Amino acid sequence: MIPTIEEQGFTLDFDAINKAITPKTRAIICCTPNNPTGTVLSEAALIELADLAQRHNLTVITDEAYEYFTFDDHRHFSIASIPEMKGRVIACYTFTKTYAMTGWRIGYLYADEAMIPQITKAHIPFAICAPVVSQYAALAALTGPQDCIAAFREHYQAARNLMCDRLDKLDSVFAYQRPHGSYLMFPRILLPDGEDSMAFCRDLLLGGKVSTTPGVAFGSGGESHLRLSFCVPLEEINKAFDRMEERYR
Amino acid sequence: MIPTIEEQGFTLDFDAINKAITPKTRAIICCTPNNPTGTVLSEAALIELADLAQRHNLTVITDEAYEYFTFDDHRHFSIASIPEMKGRVIACYTFTKTYAMTGWRIGYLYADEAMIPQITKAHIPFAICAPVVSQYAALAALTGPQDCIAAFREHYQAARNLMCDRLDKLDSVFAYQRPHGSYLMFPRILLPDGEDSMAFCRDLLLGGKVSTTPGVAFGSGGESHLRLSFCVPLEEINKAFDRMEERYR
Repeated sequence: MIPTIEEQGFTLDFDAINKAITPKTRAIICCTPNNPTGTVLSEAALIELADLAQRHNLTVITDEAYEYFTFDDHRHFSIASIPEMKGRVIACYTFTKTYAMTGWRIGYLYADEAMIPQITKAHIPFAICAPVVSQYAALAALTGPQDCIAAFREHYQAARNLMCDRLDKLDSVFAYQRPHGSYLMFPRILLPDGEDSMAFCRDLLLGGKVSTTPGVAFGSGGESHLRLSFCVPLEEINKAFDRMEERYR
Repeated sequence: MIPTIEEQGFTLDFDAINKAITPKTRAIICCTPNNPTGTVLSEAALIELADLAQRHNLTVITDEAYEYFTFDDHRHFSIASIPEMKGRVIACYTFTKTYAMTGWRIGYLYADEAMIPQITKAHIPFAICAPVVSQYAALAALTGPQDCIAAFREHYQAARNLMCDRLDKLDSVFAYQRPHGSYLMFPRILLPDGEDSMAFCRDLLLGGKVSTTPGVAFGSGGESHLRLSFCVPLEEINKAFDRMEERYR
């Protein structure tokens, strides 16, 4: 787990990544747009990561679940689109986010054809196959009208803006990096209680009736943070922040 | 992996099971009606297994996928129905066989309430949850008419009888134990070529156009066997055996 540079919007720390590579390193796993931070890695950063992967003969495994949900002028870039990375990328996608098809439990991945039989070997013991009915549902999603994606993105952007506005009023409690993608953000808890994010989130849930995810769930580097999701109606965001204002002001 | 006693219909070898238990043993995994042998463990055998589990403080994990498909006067008995086994059994079931709902990827299990949170912890990273649409389909299967189960069982029993009749005519090639449940059987290959079940099955597939599963896929004790499935139309069984007769006679 390589910590990112929070003050620069949770961007990649290439010095730290380089130092972490050993002769036993085989792959780099990377998520953009990021869960839990909402960071959208830039094309330049991903080109640098690709160079590094080629230099060290590494595979890059990406989680690009939120590819269509980026805000303002930020755009998702897939490291798999770099021609020199052919054969080096396993890029993972899902219908869960793009088409709001959570319950169908279906996704897909891109990899070099030679890798697929090995990936299937690992897949079969856990899942045998994606549900057949879900495969047809996915086909309908892909071949049907695509307007829903833009509508979801617009909603998430409005929800992101609202959540940031509401966080601004709680600036003695939380400090945040503005998310450029996904429907998630990862504010730092400024209160002393926040050092134990699990206890903080439990208190907020039981005492304040607001459900969040403790940062420590994403590794020890996530301590003193909580993850907020804006994949909810705007009125729910307002309700949650009304409750937090009452609790913390 | 404890070999069963083939000549008594692949029944449990309690001497071998007892010898295999060490202070590190935590659970016994057992499948009845059995895949790949078609054995239906008797109530007496399962009571003996339950006694042994209690004596050694072990959990019994069962795969009872084929519970409704038993033939003649054989009936499935679940070790979970023994009152003394309360808290000691994780019994696994599926809609795949009972309702022919393979593609929906949904099953369920019985365990003591205290075990469920731990089982869920292991389940979530692989599956999050069973597909929601499949949960509704399963509900419809459970609350709808149940005639299909008896119809499936009758078909499988007829298919079992046909497959045994056809195997009788190939008695220089295969020796078999008559299956009492599931839709599977596990004949021993009598030809010298059969010692390498993987090579034998590959030859039969490519040369004879009959698809079977090599016994070695079920562990080294399965070598010199192949698994036959009678979960197919009767004419397909006849076609496969016509081809095998042509090949081996």
